Order: sequence, then structure tokens, then C-alpha cells
Amino acid sequence: MVQLGLVGLGRMGFNMRERLRAAGHEVVGYDRNPEASDAPSLSALVSALSVPRMVWVMVPAGEPTRQTITELRELLDEGDLLIDGGNSRFSDDRVHAELLAEHGIGYLDVGVSGGVWGKDNGYGLMVGGAETDVARAMPIFDALRPEGPREEGFAHAGSVGAGHYAKMVHNGIEYGLMQAYAEGFELLDAAKVVDNVPAVIRAWQRGTVVRSWLLELLVRALEEDPDLDDLEGYVEDSGEGRWTLEEAINNAVPAPVISAALFARFASRQQDSAAMRAVAALREQFGGHAVKKVGE
Amino acid sequence: MVQLGLVGLGRMGFNMRERLRAAGHEVVGYDRNPEASDAPSLSALVSALSVPRMVWVMVPAGEPTRQTITELRELLDEGDLLIDGGNSRFSDDRVHAELLAEHGIGYLDVGVSGGVWGKDNGYGLMVGGAETDVARAMPIFDALRPEGPREEGFAHAGSVGAGHYAKMVHNGIEYGLMQAYAEGFELLDAAKVVDNVPAVIRAWQRGTVVRSWLLELLVRALEEDPDLDDLEGYVEDSGEGRWTLEEAINNAVPAPVISAALFARFASRQQDSAAMRAVAALREQFGGHAVKKVGE
Amino acid sequence: MVQLGLVGLGRMGFNMRERLRAAGHEVVGYDRNPEASDAPSLSALVSALSVPRMVWVMVPAGEPTRQTITELRELLDEGDLLIDGGNSRFSDDRVHAELLAEHGIGYLDVGVSGGVWGKDNGYGLMVGGAETDVARAMPIFDALRPEGPREEGFAHAGSVGAGHYAKMVHNGIEYGLMQAYAEGFELLDAAKVVDNVPAVIRAWQRGTVVRSWLLELLVRALEEDPDLDDLEGYVEDSGEGRWTLEEAINNAVPAPVISAALFARFASRQQDSAAMRAVAALREQFGGHAVKKVGE
Amino acid sequence: MVQLGLVGLGRMGFNMRERLRAAGHEVVGYDRNPEASDAPSLSALVSALSVPRMVWVMVPAGEPTRQTITELRELLDEGDLLIDGGNSRFSDDRVHAELLAEHGIGYLDVGVSGGVWGKDNGYGLMVGGAETDVARAMPIFDALRPEGPREEGFAHAGSVGAGHYAKMVHNGIEYGLMQAYAEGFELLDAAKVVDNVPAVIRAWQRGTVVRSWLLELLVRALEEDPDLDDLEGYVEDSGEGRWTLEEAINNAVPAPVISAALFARFASRQQDSAAMRAVAALREQFGGHAVKKVGE
Repeated sequence: MVQLGLVGLGRMGFNMRERLRAAGHEVVGYDRNPEASDAPSLSALVSALSVPRMVWVMVPAGEPTRQTITELRELLDEGDLLIDGGNSRFSDDRVHAELLAEHGIGYLDVGVSGGVWGKDNGYGLMVGGAETDVARAMPIFDALRPEGPREEGFAHAGSVGAGHYAKMVHNGIEYGLMQAYAEGFELLDAAKVVDNVPAVIRAWQRGTVVRSWLLELLVRALEEDPDLDDLEGYVEDSGEGRWTLEEAINNAVPAPVISAALFARFASRQQDSAAMRAVAALREQFGGHAVKKVGE
Repeated sequence: MVQLGLVGLGRMGFNMRERLRAAGHEVVGYDRNPEASDAPSLSALVSALSVPRMVWVMVPAGEPTRQTITELRELLDEGDLLIDGGNSRFSDDRVHAELLAEHGIGYLDVGVSGGVWGKDNGYGLMVGGAETDVARAMPIFDALRPEGPREEGFAHAGSVGAGHYAKMVHNGIEYGLMQAYAEGFELLDAAKVVDNVPAVIRAWQRGTVVRSWLLELLVRALEEDPDLDDLEGYVEDSGEGRWTLEEAINNAVPAPVISAALFARFASRQQDSAAMRAVAALREQFGGHAVKKVGE
Repeated sequence: MVQLGLVGLGRMGFNMRERLRAAGHEVVGYDRNPEASDAPSLSALVSALSVPRMVWVMVPAGEPTRQTITELRELLDEGDLLIDGGNSRFSDDRVHAELLAEHGIGYLDVGVSGGVWGKDNGYGLMVGGAETDVARAMPIFDALRPEGPREEGFAHAGSVGAGHYAKMVHNGIEYGLMQAYAEGFELLDAAKVVDNVPAVIRAWQRGTVVRSWLLELLVRALEEDPDLDDLEGYVEDSGEGRWTLEEAINNAVPAPVISAALFARFASRQQDSAAMRAVAALREQFGGHAVKKVGE
Repeated sequence: MVQLGLVGLGRMGFNMRERLRAAGHEVVGYDRNPEASDAPSLSALVSALSVPRMVWVMVPAGEPTRQTITELRELLDEGDLLIDGGNSRFSDDRVHAELLAEHGIGYLDVGVSGGVWGKDNGYGLMVGGAETDVARAMPIFDALRPEGPREEGFAHAGSVGAGHYAKMVHNGIEYGLMQAYAEGFELLDAAKVVDNVPAVIRAWQRGTVVRSWLLELLVRALEEDPDLDDLEGYVEDSGEGRWTLEEAINNAVPAPVISAALFARFASRQQDSAAMRAVAALREQFGGHAVKKVGE
């Protein structure tokens, strides 16, 4: 059994603390929200851990993660290990690892998949960093990952950054998968050839080529709301899809499906599209085609 | 100077009659709207023409064209020539040509481009049919096409159906061109790096690689409404884009740009997207991600 | 236990006969290949069945299915039931059902998913047709579908055609899913940030959002050939992807992911692309950009 | 008449010197290639100019431009003006402007369109920077831009960076336009419905909606090589397309056409696609579908 400091007890971190404790590990958690927090401050959390320490950071990517790591750099000691399990961009990892290496602190980046289901099902883990650091954190990884063979829910993907890179691509794929199901759903919904769309999608769960965990979630959603009409077709994107596309561009890899999925989200958030106003304007100009004027 | 019967005096047909008369040809027009019509009925129009007759049909594609041709088949005589200048699907042309051939009536299909500007600028013409029929109608084609070398505004594209096929592909390309300009416009509009977007687009009219007639129309539209915000981003599609994509599928030709342009139009007409409701539902299921509920 | 005539003992039909017999049903199979066939001819097969008969047709879509159904129409009697389990276009089903209804023969269309794994795992089934015909064939469906709740591997999707329609959309989704994984794989492969790409993909099998049966198959493929370089990037398409896209067009449903996946297959089969020759030619024309001449 | 130093006498710079001299301006050119160069060195060029100097840099984007500007910063004096007319990324402009401002040197960024045709037709110009600097360089801009109203071939797009931003979007649009024509060409070529594809495309030059300068170039290319089969379908990309897509991502602007055009170029350069090997592998795994093995 090992001891872990865990910074960030939001939706993900909170559940991870539960899963780790259930596995018998000692977790000291810190969160700005005092109700969730075990320690009153970051420095108190660090003081509560025996050296060499292991601290898992689970806060939003970007500035929050950067700040937390910068603070921890001052609090931790040589020989300690910091693990970033948030959704950081892989390019941040090199910066973070160097910042910490100057103080002799080790660094691992971990892509964590599984969402709110991870507490019970376990989390898929993709790790970047040095072999010795990975070995040291392995009891934690083994407690977080799903039951079953380690290599089916955990990978040491490569050196620093590789964990978040693997997670980034995972999420890019996820965008494409979701959009594929979504287009199929919309076609079934629009065509009115199939009488009971939720029943057909439910029947895809066994034996078919498209069966997947996402499909099971779609079945759940349709059970709660058969036409999905309690929801608006408005979809955020959290960064990894954009980064995946940027990396596709950087590596000259065609990514038509992932980009289409990302653009569909962008479009879903537009009340009106400047591009389509331009197309409407052109049609009006050359053909006298009817257009919709605002307010009509 | 030749004599032509012209059936259908809408936006296109009306202007074409003007242009033909301005060139000195005799045009007897028929339209269901008596104010525009020269002849009180289709049979009166046919009676008013000297044999062998030449009748140009310029009515909406599909059922209206089919009906008009079916009626004319009974009214015309062996040796007459019928020209379909509407936006018919190329596959209809074979049917129409056979219907007419049974009565000894010739058939040409003509794709006509140019919109409301054609009256003054001339119309781009793509013709399918037999060489002798094309030769017979050439005075009409020469009057309708733009000034300049005949081969720059007119083509005998092939046998029956080839004219509408060429026009269909022309329109598929047009969809792609419009969407390309539209995406660039939206990016300039959104990024706020360029201060005066209409001025930049106006400056693309001379010397640049993207200069075109469509660009000139966009400049005109922006002069009238610099943000294009009198319009809604709602765009109809008239058939040729769909047919082009179907033909791309039939010929295993990748058409990512033309399909993207068509789908952008479909999406522009949706108040809400069932597909994006499904993506939102999936994100809520696996990640507890916030979604927009209807009415919130 | 029921009796079934099964026409077509190829990759799918052969395995289905095995699965049905293992479940205790009596199957009389016919195939043009005498080694696989139980009956020497189609009429012998029909004669071998007790009335009212049930015959499952499992031959290639299009002409072969049409011919088989036409022949069976003459051999079967009023009250018999014909089931088309092949990959027919849903629009064929209405034709087939009418052909058979004229002779009092019932008709069901069944979309069957599961590939070569269906013999052991069971097949996902989507059925179109009348309730009474579905009920009559249910023992067969129950034997073919996977273990578990019936509604998770079987759906009565609607009236005639709905089964194949559901299967068509299933396959369109499948195209999108495969392409999403494929783009992710190519990016991981090209970026060289992750050291062991197959290990990362293997680790996605448990706990992650992208886990699916297709992912498991990708893991299997990578175990056999870690760079997939025994294969050429050449991918056929079998029809359902095209039909799905045609239906998306007909219903004005944006399908950017499914179309991208289909076009990627088209492009994969081209030695050289006329479109890209045109782009190269344009760049050479305006910019004097270097191009590749054939033979260089 | 004004005096201009011009650094970089490649395909673009060489022609621009000609055009400027033809307009009566004094141009001192420098190029690493002594045959093209007027001055033996960059410092000799600077010495040859009267103060306050105006120097136009026309070298490849990225490192070459950065180096040239860094060197010129040491050679120029307060009050001089440096103009970057290359294809720099707009984000470089802010860096360059600041570097120069520290020495009191002014900076303009100019996007230049028109390719090898610019010498005779004039160049489309999009300029970013301060109003006073723009006014000072206006005689040069007026000589370089096409005949006709200034605002149809020239725009002061905004502050530093806006010129290259406008040019970047121009090129993104250009990618989309070219791909739209290319897809249409490929479909006409593949479908074999139109007998004479080059004749049809030639006929689109007058009166049609798709007429453009790029279309005229396509006509020229087809006149030289009617099937474009002297070329390979292999297309480079020079940066602006990628940057446009990155900016679309940054601004959450859907850009399906521009991305499709970029990805088509990426794919055109692949001998074989890892993604499509993955799709082939999946089809083999689930369906036993035939695949192409390397060497078969």
C-alpha cells in the first residue's frame, strides 16, 4: 500500500480518491473547496506526506495546472514525484518536466479516460515518463486501472508527453466515433423508415460490428429520452479535439473524420453562421434566389 | 433570324425572351401567367410557329418539365425540335428524348448558367444531343451566349444528357466555390485581425489568385450590407448539388469539398440537430459534461 | 425446433447453418457449389421442406438475390415465408415483397451483422416485415442472435425494408467508426511521440471511452502485424456506405463523417488522382510551382 | 518616383523589380545569387539607399525572413521602413515589428498575390501596419498593384499582421476553390458522359457562375495537356493552408471545405496510407474481406 497526495477533487479527482482508498491506499487530498479537502492548504498536504513523496495533480489543463505545478515545485523536495493526470496539452509536459527537474523532482504525465464511470469500472491510463518513475507509481496505476490484464487498461506510452499525446489522440478518435453514431441516429430519425429508432440502436449492443461502450451509453440516453429532445444540439469541445487536429496538420496526416466531428461541434454552437449568410448573399446576387431576411 | 417557341417565362425564361428578341429573333412565349404570355395556350403557341418548329422548354425540373414535354409531344409534329433548357436531371433527358423520338421529334438538353445577369451578360450554355439538332439551334445559342469566342461560352458536350450533366457538375463546383469564400469570410469576421473585412475582399478583385465573378458578387453584397446581417444563414439547395454528389458516389470519385458544401447547406436549415443532440447526450452520459437542456 | 431452407452457403450462410443446427433446428441448405449443398437444386430444396415453408436467402445483393427470389416465387406456395438476409438495398425489399405477395408468399428482410464471428458470438439482427411473419421466424432469429436479452441483439425495426434500412445505417456508422480509429492510428504512427503504438491501442480496451469491438479487432490485427505493413492501404466498399450517403442526401441530413469515410476508401483505390493532377496543374500555372511530371 | 531596396530576387522578387522599374521607380536589389543582385552585400544595399530608407524583404517565410530582418535591423537607421512582402505567418509580424521598433525602424507586412503573372497583371496587395508607413510606401504599392481602382487590388487591412492574415485567408480560400474545380474535373473525367471535357471547361469562361481566373488557368493547362496526364497527382502545400486551418480552430470557425482541400493534398503525397491499412485490417478481421497484401 502506498501513500499519495492528490490535488484537485473535482468530478474526476474525487472519484479517484474513492477508488484508491477502496484499494487500500492512503490518499491525502487537497482542493480549494474545503468541504472536499483533507488538507487545509497545499503546503499542509505536502507536509502530511512521507518522503519521498508522490503527488498527483488533477486540476484543469492550462493555467490552473501550470500554477499548481509551480507552487508544488517550491514545496516538494528532490526525489519526490509529481504526476499530472489532467488533460494537459502534451507540449506542456516538457515544460513542466524541466521546471521540476531543476529541483530534482520527477514527473509523469498520465492521460486518464473513463469519465464518471471510472470510479467503479476503473480508468484507462496512458503514461509518459521515465521507466523508474512509472515503476514507482505502479501501485497507484494498478488501483486506478480496470480489472483484467494490466496491458488492456494501462500503457507506458513513452517518454514525457507521450501519455497526454496518447490521450489526445484517444479523444480525437472519440470525437469521430461519437459523430458517426450521431449521424446514423439523425438519419434514422429523419428517414422515418424504422419505426422504433431506440429499439434498433438497443439491438446493436450484441453481435454487431458497431457495438461499443459509447453505443451502450447512447442506449442509456435513449431510454431516458427516446427522441433526445430534452437536450439542445449544442456541444462544447474541451481542447483535445483541437490539438489532435493541429497535430494532424503538423504531421501532414489527413484527418477528415476528426475534423468533421470538431467542426460539427463548432457549428452546433452558432446561433447563425456568417459563412452561410455569405452563401445566401451570393445566391441572392446571382440568381435572385429567395433568402431569409432577419425578422421575416 | 429564326423563330422559337419558348415555354416558361419565369425569372430565366422572361429574360431569355428579351435577349433573343434584342438579337432579332422571333420568340413566341407561353406561360401559365397570362400577363407574361404571348400565346393563350400551349396549343396556340404550337399553332403560331411555322414548321419545322423549335420549342424551348424553360420550366422547373421534374414533374413540370415532364408534363410540358408530354403535352408538347402530342402537339408537335415529326421533324420538330424540342429543347429542354431547365435544370433537369441528366437521367431525365434519355427518357424525354425517347418519348419524343417515338413521334419523330428531336431533342436537345441545355444547361444554362448565368442567373439574372444572363440577359445582359449572356448565358453560359452546355448542350447535349445530335450534331444536326445542335446546328439547327445554333442561331438561338449564339444569341443567348455571351459575346466573345463561341467556345468560351458554349459547348456541345456530347449526346443527349451531356448538357445537363455538364451543368450539374458546374453547379457542384459552384457549391464548393461559394463555400470556400464563405469560410474565408467567416474566419476574417471572427478573428478580428483585419479591421475592414469588406475592404480586403474588395481588394481581391484584381491581381489575386482568388478573383472571380462570384467574388465580385460577394463584393456587391458586402457593399449593400457590410456584415451581411440583414440575412439569415439559411441556404436552400436546388438539386444539382445533390445529383453531383450522387454521381460522385456512383463513379467512386472522392468529393469532399462538394459534399461539405452541400452538408453546410443542410445544416444551415436545421433549427436544431438531432446528431448534435446525440453527441451532447453521449458527453453527458460518460463525463457528466454540462449540456443545454431545452428551455434553460 | 423448426425447419428452414437456406439458400446460399458462402462465408455467412455456411456459418449460419452451423449455428442453427447447433441450436437444434433442421436446416436444408442449397448452394450452387455442390460440396456445400444439402439439396441438388433449388426445387429439390423446396420439395424437401414441409409446408408451410420458411426459406432464408443469403446470396449477394442485387441481381443474384433478385434471381433467387424470382425462382423461389415459382417454387413456393401460398402461405410460405421467404426471408432475405443478404445485404440488399432497402428499396429492393418493397419490390421483392410485392412480387411474392402476388403469390401469397410472405416476406421478411433481415439485416445481419457480425461477420465471420457470428457463428460463435451470434449475429445482430434487424428485421423488417409483418408482425405475424416475424413471430413465425422468431425461433430462427433466437438461434442466430447472440446470447443475452433478445432486445440487445434483435430488433423488429418496422415494415418491409426497415430491417435492411437499419442495417444500412449500421454499416454507414461502421465506416465512420473505422475511419476514426484509422486516423488516430495514422497520427500516432506518424508523430513518433508514442514509442509503442500497438501497446497504447491495446491499453484502450478497458476503462476508456473508445473501447469497442472494432478496437479489439484492431488490437488483434496489430498483434499479428504491428505496423500493418503486410497490407496495402486499399479498401473496397460494398454498397451500404454509398446507400447511407444517398439516403442522407435524400433526407437532407448532414453526414460529413460517413461521407469522409467513404471518400477515403474511394481515394485509397486510386493509383493517381485526376483531381490532384488538376490542382497540381493550377499551381504550376499560376505560381510556377514545381510539380511531379510522370516518369520523373 | 521613389527609391526602394529589394532583398530577395527569386521568382517573385525578380519580377517585382521589373514591374517597379517599368513604373519609373529606382530599385536596388540584393540576392545571394550575384547574377541577379545589384549590390554585392546587404550592407552595400543599405549604403546605396538615401535616408530615410525603404527596404522590401521578399525571401522565404520563417528562418530566412527572420535572419534577413535581424541583419537589416543592425544596418538600418531610425526612421527607415522595412516591408516584409514574403509569405510570413501573421504571428511572426508582431515579433518582427517589435524587433525593429526597438531601433526606431518602421514595419509593414504585405501579403502579395498573383504569382508569376504579377509582373504583367500587377499583384494583389494586402497591407498591415501604421497609416503613416502605408502612406509612405504607397507609390510602391501603386506600381505593384494592378491597373484599375486602387481599392480593387490593394487594401490596408489593419495593424501589423493584418496584411499577412488577409493573405493567409486568401490562400485558404484558394485551396478550396482549386479543390472544387478539381473534383468537378475528376467527375467529368470519370463519368464519361461528357465527350470533350476540356471543351466543356473552356465554355465555362463566359457567362457562367463559375468563371474565374483559376478557371482560365485550368483551361490553359488543359490546352497543353487535355487529360493532364503528364502530371502526377502530387501536390505540395506551402503553409498558408495549414495556418488558415489552425486559425479556424482557434476561432471555432467550421472550415470543412478548406480542411478537405488541405487533407486532399496531404493524401496526394502518400504512397500508401497507414489509416487505410488500418481500415483494411479491420475489414479482414471482422468479415474475412479480401485485402491486398504487399507484393501481391
